[in-house]
Amino acid sequence: MTKSIEAVAIVGLGLIGSSIARGVREALPEVKLSGYDTDPAVRARARELSLADSIPDDPAEAVAEADLVIMCVPVGAMEAAARAIAPGLKFDAIVSDVGSCKAPVLRALRNALPDALIIPGHPIAGTEKSGPDAGFAALFHRRWCILTPEPGTNAQAVEQIAHFWEALGAKVEIMDPERHDLVLAVTSHLPHLIAFTIVGTASHLEEVTEGEVIKYSAGGFRDFTRIAASDPTMWRDVFLANNEAVLEVLQHFQDDLDGLVKAIRSGDGAALFDWFSRTRDIRRAIVYEGQDVAAPDFGRST
Amino acid sequence: MTKSIEAVAIVGLGLIGSSIARGVREALPEVKLSGYDTDPAVRARARELSLADSIPDDPAEAVAEADLVIMCVPVGAMEAAARAIAPGLKFDAIVSDVGSCKAPVLRALRNALPDALIIPGHPIAGTEKSGPDAGFAALFHRRWCILTPEPGTNAQAVEQIAHFWEALGAKVEIMDPERHDLVLAVTSHLPHLIAFTIVGTASHLEEVTEGEVIKYSAGGFRDFTRIAASDPTMWRDVFLANNEAVLEVLQHFQDDLDGLVKAIRSGDGAALFDWFSRTRDIRRAIVYEGQDVAAPDFGRST
Repeated sequence: MTKSIEAVAIVGLGLIGSSIARGVREALPEVKLSGYDTDPAVRARARELSLADSIPDDPAEAVAEADLVIMCVPVGAMEAAARAIAPGLKFDAIVSDVGSCKAPVLRALRNALPDALIIPGHPIAGTEKSGPDAGFAALFHRRWCILTPEPGTNAQAVEQIAHFWEALGAKVEIMDPERHDLVLAVTSHLPHLIAFTIVGTASHLEEVTEGEVIKYSAGGFRDFTRIAASDPTMWRDVFLANNEAVLEVLQHFQDDLDGLVKAIRSGDGAALFDWFSRTRDIRRAIVYEGQDVAAPDFGRST
Repeated sequence: MTKSIEAVAIVGLGLIGSSIARGVREALPEVKLSGYDTDPAVRARARELSLADSIPDDPAEAVAEADLVIMCVPVGAMEAAARAIAPGLKFDAIVSDVGSCKAPVLRALRNALPDALIIPGHPIAGTEKSGPDAGFAALFHRRWCILTPEPGTNAQAVEQIAHFWEALGAKVEIMDPERHDLVLAVTSHLPHLIAFTIVGTASHLEEVTEGEVIKYSAGGFRDFTRIAASDPTMWRDVFLANNEAVLEVLQHFQDDLDGLVKAIRSGDGAALFDWFSRTRDIRRAIVYEGQDVAAPDFGRST
């Protein structure tokens, strides 16, 4: 392998950025860590938390020594953030990110940094919390991190960033950016869109009071409120950037929903039973693959 | 108060029935407990688990001494189960149930037991697991139990069953059955329908493999698989019985989804941001009211 990653810069110190910082501190204590956030209050809080060795007020300064720069900002802010670090970037630094869609992010980073060694990434991990206090080192344990290098990208650089994520506890997969965006539209973007929708529907429905929606939420609704409490800026950007794949997958969802509505209208219990039986298996497989807890009710303690 | 509840019979020993049995053992150890299930294998297992003092093979025998009979069978099986216990029922027993919709259940029970003292009920609690092994006494702690007595129902009897649920840790609310069915269509039936739909959509989508759906499910999808793993028979019956309220509420959801799709198509980031910001508040309120855990990610340990 060529030179190792001795210094890492994290641009954007929210849930994901601050989790990476904590993960580096824990798993790679020898790595020199710098950080930056456009929000002065977040920088101040990150300094209080000692999230990095240095958190300068200048983004170019934050990346000046880094062998690896990880952009942890909303997808729509990626290009501006990359332009802001450009003046300080080492010529052989690897620039990566954690954005939830990859083809648009690659274009944004390439626009801002035409000559940089860009290897986009996406750790499939998160919680509904935001900000520098919300992060924790174990966030990536046993989660997948997808890398979407362009064809011809230096293989050793790809290997280096793969090792970086593995050090943080993640499992790494290489994927084409367009495929990533379709797969994630199914496993992440559509679920979020549906959760945002239904939580809005329930809480705005005039026939039922908000008090009733809250009191009786343990009947199922509360599950949706968790991901519908995710960061609004992040998700606005995801839907705008990955609109085509999201709308394509949504069409399948709407067709399936129409099918179930017809079954309900016509009293076709066999069709409902058949559909509901098949959905059980996928949960079992997810638990078996270690992608969710086996305990009933997510192991909720209340 | 008139005579107290000295003997309870539970008809249907699945998740809810067996949780009530365990709750009675724990909170009301002096109560004589009998049980019944149409499935001989469930009766055998319930005996192994000592879920009740007696679990006879004859449903009429199971209720013969009971002051309170709680029907814990799927909504569509309610009338047949009530007919089966009718020959053994004491003339002054309270007959209640735990069905997820109340107007249809009241009709079913009234058809089978025209002269009985019927007080329908619905504890808003459950997990995605089914069967006599899945139950636990704490299932009803801090959860609401809605009672839907008919106008003119003996107030002391209503008070007795309210105290019974309170003894099991629940909070009790009295509601009109039609209102119950609308409120629960919002907080439980619609979320389940949507979860069943989206899990089916994702796992049947030809463009994306089932392996990918499972691997990357931590991006949000896995949350939906929990309630989509709920009992298929129970949910088939709920959608057939409460079809009108479910379809009415679903129409609101579809209208809201159309609105968000338009915003995505037209690149209206402000509309998306506005919608996503408002959904955060409802999660906070649910946590504040003790209807969900405050810990990120439901406190999942993986």
